[in-house]
Amino acid sequence: MDIKKIVETPAEWLNNTGTHADIVISTRVRLARNLDGIPFTNCAKEPEINKVISEVKNAVKNNPYLTNASMLDLSQVNNLVKQFLVERHLISRELAENKKGIVFVGDKELINIMVNEEDHLRIQTFSSGLEPQRTWQMINQVDDELSKSLKYAYSSNWGYLTACPTNVGTGMRTSVMIHLPALDITKQIRKILHAISQVGLAIRGLYGEGTEALGDFFQISNQITLGRSEEEITENIEKITNQIIGHEQKAREVLIKENRIQLEDQILRAYATLAYARVISSKEALELLSLVRLGAGIGLIKEVSLKVINELLVLSQPANVQLLAGEVLSNPARDVRRAIIIQQKLFREKIK
Amino acid sequence: MDIKKIVETPAEWLNNTGTHADIVISTRVRLARNLDGIPFTNCAKEPEINKVISEVKNAVKNNPYLTNASMLDLSQVNNLVKQFLVERHLISRELAENKKGIVFVGDKELINIMVNEEDHLRIQTFSSGLEPQRTWQMINQVDDELSKSLKYAYSSNWGYLTACPTNVGTGMRTSVMIHLPALDITKQIRKILHAISQVGLAIRGLYGEGTEALGDFFQISNQITLGRSEEEITENIEKITNQIIGHEQKAREVLIKENRIQLEDQILRAYATLAYARVISSKEALELLSLVRLGAGIGLIKEVSLKVINELLVLSQPANVQLLAGEVLSNPARDVRRAIIIQQKLFREKIK
Repeated sequence: MDIKKIVETPAEWLNNTGTHADIVISTRVRLARNLDGIPFTNCAKEPEINKVISEVKNAVKNNPYLTNASMLDLSQVNNLVKQFLVERHLISRELAENKKGIVFVGDKELINIMVNEEDHLRIQTFSSGLEPQRTWQMINQVDDELSKSLKYAYSSNWGYLTACPTNVGTGMRTSVMIHLPALDITKQIRKILHAISQVGLAIRGLYGEGTEALGDFFQISNQITLGRSEEEITENIEKITNQIIGHEQKAREVLIKENRIQLEDQILRAYATLAYARVISSKEALELLSLVRLGAGIGLIKEVSLKVINELLVLSQPANVQLLAGEVLSNPARDVRRAIIIQQKLFREKIK
Repeated sequence: MDIKKIVETPAEWLNNTGTHADIVISTRVRLARNLDGIPFTNCAKEPEINKVISEVKNAVKNNPYLTNASMLDLSQVNNLVKQFLVERHLISRELAENKKGIVFVGDKELINIMVNEEDHLRIQTFSSGLEPQRTWQMINQVDDELSKSLKYAYSSNWGYLTACPTNVGTGMRTSVMIHLPALDITKQIRKILHAISQVGLAIRGLYGEGTEALGDFFQISNQITLGRSEEEITENIEKITNQIIGHEQKAREVLIKENRIQLEDQILRAYATLAYARVISSKEALELLSLVRLGAGIGLIKEVSLKVINELLVLSQPANVQLLAGEVLSNPARDVRRAIIIQQKLFREKIK
């Protein structure tokens, strides 16, 4: 796999297209699948693990949705590249730690398959904006093609069998990456997040389980995989996300109406700092980008597109900064380079 | 007096000319004088106070250095205008509170005379940069001319007699307004200020006694007026100020050599905030202007002149903002207007 090409081309799901893209950055669907007759990854012996790899390799080769997919053997890359792939949402932290992990990355990072994660296969598809239906259809087609070559572990009672019981059934998780700055500024975010958790959805930070919510970016996903059809899961997350979007839109309107100057002050200070600072930590970058994203969303900042801001959310992450720089950097050197990368991106956009 | 004209034309002593103007904003000399045979202001009766006014008025009229001076009767102006004059260093807080106070303001605010302050006359002259000699010569000439018409209270033993014994003798106070940001950043400022106080000089904030030192701007002045000639006072303050300048220059060099990026980061963030914020308090304005002034001084910020920054130190003060706006403003409205004034000034300068 050509890491350099991936480094320099941000994923297409950051493109700011699709429904409600001003508030929902992206939608992701993943399916957990295991091969019939082979123990789950954590119990499998090396020959079995190798068998999974070779079977999936073969299935990918024949899959029309993955013609340009490149394969990466994680045993062959260093920790920096692994961290980079986690930041790009191409692999999970679990896969990064597995010595026999493999990942197939499809064109434009819209489809990928992790092999020998907790389950033998973790298939993922991504879209920009709130697109659970489309993203589900995409993964369903990829999965149908794969199942022509692979015999999945499946029970007519339980559905797809998975290493962890929480994934049994559909093996499906749909998540939306959502940006809720106005709900934060108006101090409604806790209430909303609590309400989400009450209706069977999980809320996480930008980088999944156990990660902090920085810059008001959240991932919302279904908890339940069993006893509900894929269509029900899709409809449910779409319905609830639309309700949250409604609250965020309302909060933005109220802020603009009642606190316009303070809002503009906050946003413009963030924009100015991103544009001028010489040293920016990754935490500060997310916080500033969040405010500038709100500013671009409400039409206050016209010089920068939401697409560039979305891309910077990923490009400003530590390993992305280092791979863009082409060298391993100390923490302080990274903060300096991050500022340069952000300013180049903002500035290039300005000239366009 | 045409207040509007004074409002819109910053004093010439902010011009950034004169010696070491990058570090010393201005030099001021004041002389305390009283008329012979009339009680000091706080003991004088109304006819005596009126007599002082009419005698000074007459003396000013005949003074070639004060041909264009305008007279302002403080009993005729509101508190906002008084505060404005204090911010411009044209009157003291004491004079502002005296119902019978009068001030004569010379051309370009380089000479002024307060009448019926603690002493009958407080004559002041100002220069840009570190110019104690020149500023002393200026006031000496003005004073010589005044003494042709006025009979000062003078004792051959004590010198000029003043209301407060601390001013007896020469009645002279020389003060320099100095900007010491690098000594603050390198945490040497306390040590330096302590050393200054040990050699008979007083240190005050931007607005004299009891005012806080904001944005690393200080006023350093002689404490002793008795038993030393005017020349000795002048030489002493010049010598010590030159030593402080040396320390500040050294601190700037060290910062640039050892902490360039962090220094640039701090300065550029301040500049960006001044240029983009919608709401700026007067305290924050001084702090940001201090950093930008350092940036302009070391050549990092080339778009803004020290002259404009000096002027903004005064123009961003609360009463200045309101008189520039032409209306009384609430605190929040003032902070919004201050941002506009600063940005107009910075921007106008950029186009030049």
